[in-house]
Amino acid sequence: MRVAVELKNAYRLVNHGPVVLVSAAHGGKDNVMAVAWCMALDFAPPKLAVVLAQETFTRSLVDQSGELVVQVPPKRMVDVVDAVGNCSGKSVDKWDRFAIERATAAKVKAPLVEGCTAWLECKVLDEPDIADKYDLFVVEVVAAWADDAAFANGRWRDDLKEELRSLHHVAGGSYFVDGKPIRAQPR
Amino acid sequence: MRVAVELKNAYRLVNHGPVVLVSAAHGGKDNVMAVAWCMALDFAPPKLAVVLAQETFTRSLVDQSGELVVQVPPKRMVDVVDAVGNCSGKSVDKWDRFAIERATAAKVKAPLVEGCTAWLECKVLDEPDIADKYDLFVVEVVAAWADDAAFANGRWRDDLKEELRSLHHVAGGSYFVDGKPIRAQPR
Repeated sequence: MRVAVELKNAYRLVNHGPVVLVSAAHGGKDNVMAVAWCMALDFAPPKLAVVLAQETFTRSLVDQSGELVVQVPPKRMVDVVDAVGNCSGKSVDKWDRFAIERATAAKVKAPLVEGCTAWLECKVLDEPDIADKYDLFVVEVVAAWADDAAFANGRWRDDLKEELRSLHHVAGGSYFVDGKPIRAQPR
Repeated sequence: MRVAVELKNAYRLVNHGPVVLVSAAHGGKDNVMAVAWCMALDFAPPKLAVVLAQETFTRSLVDQSGELVVQVPPKRMVDVVDAVGNCSGKSVDKWDRFAIERATAAKVKAPLVEGCTAWLECKVLDEPDIADKYDLFVVEVVAAWADDAAFANGRWRDDLKEELRSLHHVAGGSYFVDGKPIRAQPR
C-alpha cells in the first residue's frame, strides 16, 4: 500500500543509489524515462540532483513544467525499466506500449508510476547554468510516498522480498539487485 | 591487481550508485571520508557530481587543492567505510586509527585508498555557486583504475566474489550489498 513518507526521511528512498524512473507532464502530454544518475543532495528540505539529457522528451516536459517525479522501480519491473530507457517518448507512447499504469500525484502534475516502491514528487529549483552546461537539475522534494511492503518506519525493510529490492544499473541491460542489508561493526 | 580503466568506461565504476570513499590532500595533510551522494554526470570527458559537506576536513582539503579521488570500497571494507564516515579528520588521523593504507595517485596529489575495487582521480571544475549553495562539486575524471578481480574489460565482472561487491548506504550503519547481476529481457 502506498503511504506517505515524512519529508525528513525522503532522502533515504534514494540514498542507496538505485536506478530511478523520472516522470513528467506538460500541456496534456506525459512521459517516463529511466535515469541512473540521480542522488540525494540535502536532508531538510530534501533535495535531489538528477541528470536529464538535453535531447530527451522528459527533459522538455520538465523544462516546461518545472516539475517531475522520481520513483524507485523494484526488481519485478526490470524489463520495463530497461524498455523505457531505450526508446523515446517523442515517438512512442510508453504507457500504452509497455502497459504502465499511472496514478495522480499530490503536489505536482507529473504522474506516479504504479508498481514502484517509492515516489518523490519534486519541483525544479532555478539553476539554469548547470542545466545548460551539465544537464544537471537540482530539485526539491515536496511530497514522498513508499510501498509499505518495502519501506516502513522511515527506512527500507530489512526483510525485503527479492521482487521488491532495488535495481542498480551496471551497463547495457544489466542490473545489480540489492542483496540483504548488512550492519557495520564499530572499529 | 590495480589496472588502468579507459576514461570512456570510467562512469561505469560508479554507475550503480555505490557508497564511495573520497580522499584529498593539501599542505602535507590528507584525509578520507565516506560519501553516499556521488554520481556520474557525463561520459566523455567523464565527470562526476559529489556532495561534500561544508564542515568536513576533506572538504577543506578539496577547496584548497582542487583535487580528490573517488574510490569504491567493497563489502570486505564495510567496517572501515562506516568508521571513516563517523569521525572527523580534524581530530583523528583516520589512516593510523583504522589501519588504512594509501598509494600514490598518477595525476592528483590525493592518495588512493588501498583495498578498494575502483579509483577515479578527479580535478574539481570551477563551479563556486553550487559548492556554496548545495555543497555540490562537479569534477572531471583524469585517471581511473580498477582491481581486475572486480572490474575487467570495461565492466564489473558478472562473477564478482561476495567480498568484492559494492556497498549501498541505507541509513545509520546499514548497507545493502550488491547481489548477482540480472539481465533485462526485451519488451
